[in-house]
Amino acid sequence: MAAAGGARVLAHPALDEIRLEHVLHALSDPIRLRIVRQMAVASTGLVCSYFELPVAKSTLTHHFRVLRESGVIRQIYRGTAKLSELRGADLEKLFPGLLDSVLRAADEEAARLPGA
Amino acid sequence: MAAAGGARVLAHPALDEIRLEHVLHALSDPIRLRIVRQMAVASTGLVCSYFELPVAKSTLTHHFRVLRESGVIRQIYRGTAKLSELRGADLEKLFPGLLDSVLRAADEEAARLPGA
Repeated sequence: MAAAGGARVLAHPALDEIRLEHVLHALSDPIRLRIVRQMAVASTGLVCSYFELPVAKSTLTHHFRVLRESGVIRQIYRGTAKLSELRGADLEKLFPGLLDSVLRAADEEAARLPGA
Repeated sequence: MAAAGGARVLAHPALDEIRLEHVLHALSDPIRLRIVRQMAVASTGLVCSYFELPVAKSTLTHHFRVLRESGVIRQIYRGTAKLSELRGADLEKLFPGLLDSVLRAADEEAARLPGA
């Protein structure tokens, strides 16, 4: 999609288009959960190469698309770099406490099962 | 599986076998989410026929199995009836606040999108 000025813009669901089922599905994959946990502690948008994950680049691109299309993350182009960040405020508005409880549960599970 | 006395016993994950990713996946389906919401307000185990849902019986059986195998619900035979109930205490112990925030989010989404 091309926006005014030729900047590439990626499609995101508006706030009222975000569905709980899609958010839970996006969070139900271990790789996507690791991405979201890393974004949660970042104070800025992150490029895909920031994430050191044991999957192919095309698989990673797929995971980022699932996260974006479900409304969990926002991705914007800044020059040639694609930056990704959590839509924490949007999710908190729609589903109060949900993301926090998932992140806390994921942290505790990672501590409980360090090899998982 | 046959237990002592010939009673049928269904397989359930032990507490330390329950995984966040599997629980989130189980909750990411609209029909399973409706089942869980109904169980959350029931004070007793429920038979499958209690749930009036727009799916075939075999599909419903599949959904109950996903919920059971992920650790979200417990199913026991009482005579010839199979009773299902939420493993609310187990989930709260493993993932504090998670089930409550999902149920609250699901209630709010159902109110926001009554036709969905």
